[in-house]
Amino acid sequence: MTARLIDGKAFAAGLRERVAGVAASFASSQGRQPGLAVVLVGEHPPSAAYVRSKAKATREAGMESFEHKLLADVSQGQLMALVDELNADPAVDGILVQMPLPKHIDEQEVIQRIDPEKDVDGFHPMNAGRLSIGLEGLVPCTPLGCLMLLQHELGDLSGLDAIVVGRSNIVGKPMAQLLIQASCTVTVAHSRTKDLPAAVRRADIVVAAVGRPELIRGNWLKPGATVIDVGQERVEQADGTRKLLGDVASSEAMEVAGAITPVPGGVGPMTIACLLRNTVVAAHRRAGLPNPEGL
Amino acid sequence: MTARLIDGKAFAAGLRERVAGVAASFASSQGRQPGLAVVLVGEHPPSAAYVRSKAKATREAGMESFEHKLLADVSQGQLMALVDELNADPAVDGILVQMPLPKHIDEQEVIQRIDPEKDVDGFHPMNAGRLSIGLEGLVPCTPLGCLMLLQHELGDLSGLDAIVVGRSNIVGKPMAQLLIQASCTVTVAHSRTKDLPAAVRRADIVVAAVGRPELIRGNWLKPGATVIDVGQERVEQADGTRKLLGDVASSEAMEVAGAITPVPGGVGPMTIACLLRNTVVAAHRRAGLPNPEGL
Repeated sequence: MTARLIDGKAFAAGLRERVAGVAASFASSQGRQPGLAVVLVGEHPPSAAYVRSKAKATREAGMESFEHKLLADVSQGQLMALVDELNADPAVDGILVQMPLPKHIDEQEVIQRIDPEKDVDGFHPMNAGRLSIGLEGLVPCTPLGCLMLLQHELGDLSGLDAIVVGRSNIVGKPMAQLLIQASCTVTVAHSRTKDLPAAVRRADIVVAAVGRPELIRGNWLKPGATVIDVGQERVEQADGTRKLLGDVASSEAMEVAGAITPVPGGVGPMTIACLLRNTVVAAHRRAGLPNPEGL
Repeated sequence: MTARLIDGKAFAAGLRERVAGVAASFASSQGRQPGLAVVLVGEHPPSAAYVRSKAKATREAGMESFEHKLLADVSQGQLMALVDELNADPAVDGILVQMPLPKHIDEQEVIQRIDPEKDVDGFHPMNAGRLSIGLEGLVPCTPLGCLMLLQHELGDLSGLDAIVVGRSNIVGKPMAQLLIQASCTVTVAHSRTKDLPAAVRRADIVVAAVGRPELIRGNWLKPGATVIDVGQERVEQADGTRKLLGDVASSEAMEVAGAITPVPGGVGPMTIACLLRNTVVAAHRRAGLPNPEGL
């Protein structure tokens, strides 16, 4: 058996097109484009690259991109003042402060300063709580993208056994909440889990989000399982080249799983697409409009 | 084998004594007792009884009890105004609005109006989010009490397999968060779960919180498991008398489990004790004092 590849790149492209359509309607009814502000502190090269591609995608979706670059030695107070300014700016619907921040900055304090209605990363405790309770709010982009791929692949998830490997605030925990809300039976596993292969083998849905290259082997999987691989680590190969690896040993998994996201081209492209989606949703809520359909 | 009974009544009595000690130190250093305001709307007899016993326990712990009784036809606006008043009152450290509220009242709106720092029920989305993210906050009383009993019984929970049966906002979901934080491998099961007996049988820790009398049978349990039974439903017996039953078939479970909470006398007494604990903790935080130890 060879698993179907879940084409996150194509799904993300479709979502970005739908977001662009919604953004265009918003612009014509409201007289302004939805706006996303992205804050980069310091020169961390991968962060700078993320910020550039987020800004580009924002403009391509017909939204305004506001980029703010601060020096690595910016003070907590200066960063907080910028967040306050963006909170107050009516042209800004979404605020994203690119993590990680320099060590002298308290990240939690920054996250909690962002207006929850503009918190398109979904990291504010208020949004984490809304998700937990089942209220409307802004949901972290990566797990939201994973859920979309799962629902596209499987339809109704109700009653399926799901395992989430990893318990980070950014992926694992919100992913588990989304799957509980979708009526899966959900197991959260992590580094302290005693028998991870056995736990994985019971699951119809496996979401791997630990950042340990190829931790999950093909023979751990239940035949026919749907596998979402959030990992993407650059690993040096024997020949000195570097290869992007997921948390799942993909060539082994292809022989057992029913469907699997490739790395790259699976979950990765969904994160930015969901960021754009969250921004246009935030714009609608702030304008007192109903949630846009089809996103 | 006969399971050990986990004496929640005795543990709760000890906790209430420790809370009283902390409340007395607080009163002597701050010149006022910690204060808990309880709001009862309408005449629902069990709610009225809960409120009376909460008020009595509050006074017994050396704290001030403020009771507010509103007529069943109170408007949303009047109830919100009372919450605002209690939020602003410096003598009030904790606010509890007794649920359920009459149908014409929007419960979520009331919960979200309570200052999260006084939300001793832990139901505000801000506190649900803090729990989810792993920040300090106020945790719902019943799951907090269950965690205390588990840690008292088992010590370190790290690596244990736990199942939470039920996914309510009041018990199931926060219980799962607490167990994930305690490094258990946690499964959340519910009415849509396909094979509940098999899922329960894998668990070292079973927390049953579904409100279905004796749903969980003795032969579903792993021998030696620790069982926390949150259910307490009054059920009419063949002879016409009424008996309080938990979610676990207790006489069967006694033969298989390692330890189990009785109904009544297990989880029940922990809820009020944790409410008092949350109130004295809220008082300390509001006064800028470090969290009291030993609670």
